[in-house]
Amino acid sequence: MKKILIINGPNLNLLGRREPDIYGRLGFDAYLEQLRAIFPDCDIQYFQSNSEGALINKIHEAGFSLDGIVLNAGGYTHTSVALRDAIQAVDVPVIEVHISNVHAREEFRHKSLISAVCKGVIVGFGLDSYRLAIEGIRN
Amino acid sequence: MKKILIINGPNLNLLGRREPDIYGRLGFDAYLEQLRAIFPDCDIQYFQSNSEGALINKIHEAGFSLDGIVLNAGGYTHTSVALRDAIQAVDVPVIEVHISNVHAREEFRHKSLISAVCKGVIVGFGLDSYRLAIEGIRN
Amino acid sequence: MKKILIINGPNLNLLGRREPDIYGRLGFDAYLEQLRAIFPDCDIQYFQSNSEGALINKIHEAGFSLDGIVLNAGGYTHTSVALRDAIQAVDVPVIEVHISNVHAREEFRHKSLISAVCKGVIVGFGLDSYRLAIEGIRN
Amino acid sequence: MKKILIINGPNLNLLGRREPDIYGRLGFDAYLEQLRAIFPDCDIQYFQSNSEGALINKIHEAGFSLDGIVLNAGGYTHTSVALRDAIQAVDVPVIEVHISNVHAREEFRHKSLISAVCKGVIVGFGLDSYRLAIEGIRN
Amino acid sequence: MKKILIINGPNLNLLGRREPDIYGRLGFDAYLEQLRAIFPDCDIQYFQSNSEGALINKIHEAGFSLDGIVLNAGGYTHTSVALRDAIQAVDVPVIEVHISNVHAREEFRHKSLISAVCKGVIVGFGLDSYRLAIEGIRN
Amino acid sequence: MKKILIINGPNLNLLGRREPDIYGRLGFDAYLEQLRAIFPDCDIQYFQSNSEGALINKIHEAGFSLDGIVLNAGGYTHTSVALRDAIQAVDVPVIEVHISNVHAREEFRHKSLISAVCKGVIVGFGLDSYRLAIEGIRN
Amino acid sequence: MKKILIINGPNLNLLGRREPDIYGRLGFDAYLEQLRAIFPDCDIQYFQSNSEGALINKIHEAGFSLDGIVLNAGGYTHTSVALRDAIQAVDVPVIEVHISNVHAREEFRHKSLISAVCKGVIVGFGLDSYRLAIEGIRN
Amino acid sequence: MKKILIINGPNLNLLGRREPDIYGRLGFDAYLEQLRAIFPDCDIQYFQSNSEGALINKIHEAGFSLDGIVLNAGGYTHTSVALRDAIQAVDVPVIEVHISNVHAREEFRHKSLISAVCKGVIVGFGLDSYRLAIEGIRN
Amino acid sequence: MKKILIINGPNLNLLGRREPDIYGRLGFDAYLEQLRAIFPDCDIQYFQSNSEGALINKIHEAGFSLDGIVLNAGGYTHTSVALRDAIQAVDVPVIEVHISNVHAREEFRHKSLISAVCKGVIVGFGLDSYRLAIEGIRN
Amino acid sequence: MKKILIINGPNLNLLGRREPDIYGRLGFDAYLEQLRAIFPDCDIQYFQSNSEGALINKIHEAGFSLDGIVLNAGGYTHTSVALRDAIQAVDVPVIEVHISNVHAREEFRHKSLISAVCKGVIVGFGLDSYRLAIEGIRN
Amino acid sequence: MKKILIINGPNLNLLGRREPDIYGRLGFDAYLEQLRAIFPDCDIQYFQSNSEGALINKIHEAGFSLDGIVLNAGGYTHTSVALRDAIQAVDVPVIEVHISNVHAREEFRHKSLISAVCKGVIVGFGLDSYRLAIEGIRN
Amino acid sequence: MKKILIINGPNLNLLGRREPDIYGRLGFDAYLEQLRAIFPDCDIQYFQSNSEGALINKIHEAGFSLDGIVLNAGGYTHTSVALRDAIQAVDVPVIEVHISNVHAREEFRHKSLISAVCKGVIVGFGLDSYRLAIEGIRN
Repeated sequence: MKKILIINGPNLNLLGRREPDIYGRLGFDAYLEQLRAIFPDCDIQYFQSNSEGALINKIHEAGFSLDGIVLNAGGYTHTSVALRDAIQAVDVPVIEVHISNVHAREEFRHKSLISAVCKGVIVGFGLDSYRLAIEGIRN
Repeated sequence: MKKILIINGPNLNLLGRREPDIYGRLGFDAYLEQLRAIFPDCDIQYFQSNSEGALINKIHEAGFSLDGIVLNAGGYTHTSVALRDAIQAVDVPVIEVHISNVHAREEFRHKSLISAVCKGVIVGFGLDSYRLAIEGIRN
Repeated sequence: MKKILIINGPNLNLLGRREPDIYGRLGFDAYLEQLRAIFPDCDIQYFQSNSEGALINKIHEAGFSLDGIVLNAGGYTHTSVALRDAIQAVDVPVIEVHISNVHAREEFRHKSLISAVCKGVIVGFGLDSYRLAIEGIRN
Repeated sequence: MKKILIINGPNLNLLGRREPDIYGRLGFDAYLEQLRAIFPDCDIQYFQSNSEGALINKIHEAGFSLDGIVLNAGGYTHTSVALRDAIQAVDVPVIEVHISNVHAREEFRHKSLISAVCKGVIVGFGLDSYRLAIEGIRN
Repeated sequence: MKKILIINGPNLNLLGRREPDIYGRLGFDAYLEQLRAIFPDCDIQYFQSNSEGALINKIHEAGFSLDGIVLNAGGYTHTSVALRDAIQAVDVPVIEVHISNVHAREEFRHKSLISAVCKGVIVGFGLDSYRLAIEGIRN
Repeated sequence: MKKILIINGPNLNLLGRREPDIYGRLGFDAYLEQLRAIFPDCDIQYFQSNSEGALINKIHEAGFSLDGIVLNAGGYTHTSVALRDAIQAVDVPVIEVHISNVHAREEFRHKSLISAVCKGVIVGFGLDSYRLAIEGIRN
Repeated sequence: MKKILIINGPNLNLLGRREPDIYGRLGFDAYLEQLRAIFPDCDIQYFQSNSEGALINKIHEAGFSLDGIVLNAGGYTHTSVALRDAIQAVDVPVIEVHISNVHAREEFRHKSLISAVCKGVIVGFGLDSYRLAIEGIRN
Repeated sequence: MKKILIINGPNLNLLGRREPDIYGRLGFDAYLEQLRAIFPDCDIQYFQSNSEGALINKIHEAGFSLDGIVLNAGGYTHTSVALRDAIQAVDVPVIEVHISNVHAREEFRHKSLISAVCKGVIVGFGLDSYRLAIEGIRN
Repeated sequence: MKKILIINGPNLNLLGRREPDIYGRLGFDAYLEQLRAIFPDCDIQYFQSNSEGALINKIHEAGFSLDGIVLNAGGYTHTSVALRDAIQAVDVPVIEVHISNVHAREEFRHKSLISAVCKGVIVGFGLDSYRLAIEGIRN
Repeated sequence: MKKILIINGPNLNLLGRREPDIYGRLGFDAYLEQLRAIFPDCDIQYFQSNSEGALINKIHEAGFSLDGIVLNAGGYTHTSVALRDAIQAVDVPVIEVHISNVHAREEFRHKSLISAVCKGVIVGFGLDSYRLAIEGIRN
Repeated sequence: MKKILIINGPNLNLLGRREPDIYGRLGFDAYLEQLRAIFPDCDIQYFQSNSEGALINKIHEAGFSLDGIVLNAGGYTHTSVALRDAIQAVDVPVIEVHISNVHAREEFRHKSLISAVCKGVIVGFGLDSYRLAIEGIRN
Repeated sequence: MKKILIINGPNLNLLGRREPDIYGRLGFDAYLEQLRAIFPDCDIQYFQSNSEGALINKIHEAGFSLDGIVLNAGGYTHTSVALRDAIQAVDVPVIEVHISNVHAREEFRHKSLISAVCKGVIVGFGLDSYRLAIEGIRN
């Protein structure tokens, strides 16, 4: 059984509530149920925090034993060298995902500091980005 | 009665102690007393943290029920996309304030990542910036 | 009695007529009446011009004897070193105001050449920006 | 009968006298006669000033009642946000024209601050640029 | 009789079908009929291709014998040094046209690599840009 | 049955032969067989060309009738406004894919001109990027 | 007898009053007397204005008949293409002068838009810069 | 006895485990023992956190009473204005250290936001950078 | 016998006809005869196209069997990542040549996208650049 | 008697021989005779070197005892921080001069690294720039 | 016995005499005596020159036989690729030192061209920087 | 007999000893012998210096009488305006050569300050670059 951790960064706890035109109206907990049903052969864990330090701690904790991490780093994607260093420091492959198409939004969202150290990047499929990331890890 | 939350970001706990030439010698607690006296018709709450994540948490917590937030994000003003996203995600109008005139200081303080998603910006009036922000919300 | 001069720069004579979605439908003359009623203890003078030179002349004329100048320099905010020099050359404190949130508009409106030499900056409160500026001077 | 105003900005009063290799030897008054003969069905008015403020004043004055403005803003093309705001503030469509091919000259002439708010832009046809602009308005 | 060639670059074959809000609903063939009727004294030829190489070939072929070329280079306007070199290499004057006001669209559309070597530039008049360009050549 | 077109751009005909450390040793034809076996419910068509114009032609041809296009634009990803315009002009959703992690390679590969007009982007999963893209379309 | 015109731009009417640490305490009128005494063989005229348009008008008026113009364009030095065009348009050589060493002040004062079209530039000698400029013309 | 605090920022808890080619195989705890043995006349305290806010808290707490702080801010070195402000706000001199030669690594590691407010900077000596920093404080 | 392919890119078919001041008056066919006479021990093939795709196709076709390719990519030198990828993908060493000294021309000609993946670069010797390139390969 | 040292930097030994269109045909030795005749009350010494180090040595040697240095640093003007430091390190005021108008030449000649630490700058008067500099020192 | 060479670059011969607020009042010779006393187990040689070429010569001469070089390259730090190449070319490890905190001074002093090829960098400890560098080599 | 001077700049005296992977193991003296044997009809002189000033002196000395100069300016290629001026000042054509492919190395090596004033540029052929340069001069 594959062990996969989904990590959601800042403001993603508001999913379903925040800017539904961009992010949809489904809360992440409800979606997580769907994901677990789609992948009965995977043990899908979940972590969310608005704190950069807590995200780094979690990557350290999980980064030497799981099969993959699916990371939506939210706004830290564009500003955090520390997060990048954490991803690079661990063994487990990390997949960067974004719900919206960040390249179609503000200029400052076009540059990701973490893409270069992730195994793959999936952008713009709505919540389905998470499912595709798990598909990518499972292979 | 208007409910207003003042949020102070990193290093503003040192107010009165840190670089008094720029920030003055009055601690924020003493100033808060003055503010509450000036606005007897407002319920003025206060929160300070040096942690980006804690600031975001607070904005989430308060951002759907108050009449306004007065935010001095300190150094995060110039670096935090996550904070910007938090402001944009909530319903309550946020007023960005700065004690000193950030435009007369180092180049990197001239650009605010959060101004674009705040309702208004008040800069350079010393501690009086907070009073003006509450004036602005009260209207 | 405090003597305060409000200076409006280019295109602000069209207020109430120009892009009402951004600037509102109230002409400045009508608003000026309101302001004078709000501040019976202030002598509020008013000047508007579309000419950079005329604005500089007015700042020179008023800049050594009043208690404060409230300046909305319009488009010259982003391009005029001469205006900046005028503000720096006089003794009276100048407050920079903007009706709209310039930081939420085009990139070239994000940089003000005059902020660094103004005492304070107030942005985005609609016409109420002027009232807050006078509040700031009065203190 | 279509009412059209031609506005010439700074240094264009020297036409026929200034750098004839670039701008030709014909004065604008003589050319204006030709234009009026070509368009007997148009009422073609003319205004020239070297002052940014005067140009803005004229745009305000004419900008709510004519059928079109043909504007050669000269050097202000590349530096004036105030002029841009004036064009955007009025109802009448404005056509930006240049006598010479500004894109084949110095780098700083390649960027126009006003193009984005004009209806159309015509560059490089010598004095004939004005005729084409009127053709464009008349349609 | 003046011989004029209109060259349309990439995606302009979709005219009338592609983003009608920006480009209108009239196909270019139908418009070409109108143009020929307007200019009975001109022999107006037409060429369209999505291939940069084919556009260059056509410019070479036509560039030493016609009276003028009207070129809408579409997306190649902003990226093709090769096209610029082709225009510079031939004798026939080339007029650059754009249907929409490229300066009011994305930043990367503000810079044209070919303007400097064209005789004139006409931007933003819808399909009427082509008519004005022919007017310009005919003079 | 879903109709999906895979389009490969320049140099991808060398797959299996070119820089196998980055792109692997499997030719695309062999991989295509695998893909068709994985998605028996999809009609997967394939097109490859080294010519920008041919790629645009194909997008026009397919862009109004299929269920989705999977596009690896190779080097044109970073330089082609014309390709971007083609994607934006058609109705069919386009998924941008890259075999390697372009963000971990040269600086000029970090910026995609087409991402903003694609529905989604998948980067860095090797040939598996194509499978994930089809997964994304099929949903 | 050499005819020389000194033109002072914006804020230089405040000389002796504005920032005396940088500009000294001598008013320009007093200095002008000294200059005329030093150069009895020169007819030294003087003009000052805070208006860009008025400065251009003056350059046009004087620019075809005098022996030289000494121009301190103040803040317009760094922002005015229109002034540059005026200098380039006239026959009389123009010497650019600055009282303070602009290169030792703010970054935006390091670039002059007019230097390239002036005959010479003299910077940093205090009021003596004007005398040296006249020396330069007289030769 | 000199009181010195060593603060390690994000990911430095993985020392000895993370990228040993760059950072070596020795854990920081073991190294700390060596340091204390080398400097028997110093009271060397230690703090590590992955949280920007916690690092700022620690600097505030220690910054008014110790003899020196040795700070390896990890990835926050390049992104944190808040940390810079904390260092500037306290009295105790701070020495910035880096284990690897950051100038020989990625471009974004070449710029430190905190160097300007530190007393000194020591880069590239491996773990020995900490010893040299203490040497520097002890003097 | 060494097998060498000369590839000329866009607009080089006009050699002898286009801007003779820069490129000379000799057509490439005539020059090719001279080259073959100079190098009787080389089999010198020749290909020219204005199409980026055709150039890539040719590099693929020839890039695994010849002794060297001499490539003058014309305007594509400065814009084509796809061409760069083609050169990098093949085994045969490629020499980049330019007839004129591109570094003494427009700024945009100073940067070559292909130099980094070519074996050598020869610039500015007129048509003799081709001879020197063959000399370089022959060694 | 005022002691003044003229220092000429790289390539100025070729004066009269190098690019006479820009620099004139008079050698510096001949000009020096003229200068000494003009200023009989000054002891004018002269030094020229093409070596950056020798120029710095000379500034050190002369920089604590003379009344002024006139420095034409030639190409080092735009590249030498070491020369700037030398000027800043000595007591004697240094006047920067240039024979040609550097601002009307290549872009890289527009920025001087030494202007900020010189007392004054004189540009574009031909050899007369030296005379004006001595005039400036003598005052 | 460790053989160590200290190389001081331009203007450091003025130490003790130049800007004592920044560099202190102690001449380097006196300091060298102190250093030799501190490190009796080291043979500390010394070289100073204002010439870039002489510095390179010395690095070549010493760079294949000593145990370490301590280099304060002064102004060449920020401009010399040649010096960087010299350091990279030799075997002996080089430590870059600066007396003042260059990061707290002008922008152009923030970038070192040589850091990337040095073993370590020590900045801001006054003359003590040299001692720490020797400490670093000795280990 | 053609007189040709080869000038080698900084660090090229270490050839054969410095980074042999990039520059090869052959010393330049040995190579010079080979060159002279290849070109018995040429008088090939040689000069090497690490000093910018000495290189300029040599160019002055040789630049009015020889048939050509082959210049490898090493690190000065990217930083020396003075060297560029020297090349431009002399009559003899100068060929810029580089042993390695500078465009495939660090970003700062991609820009040459001297290419624009050289007759031709040859890059990346190892020591054979010198032979090709002489071939180019001899023609």
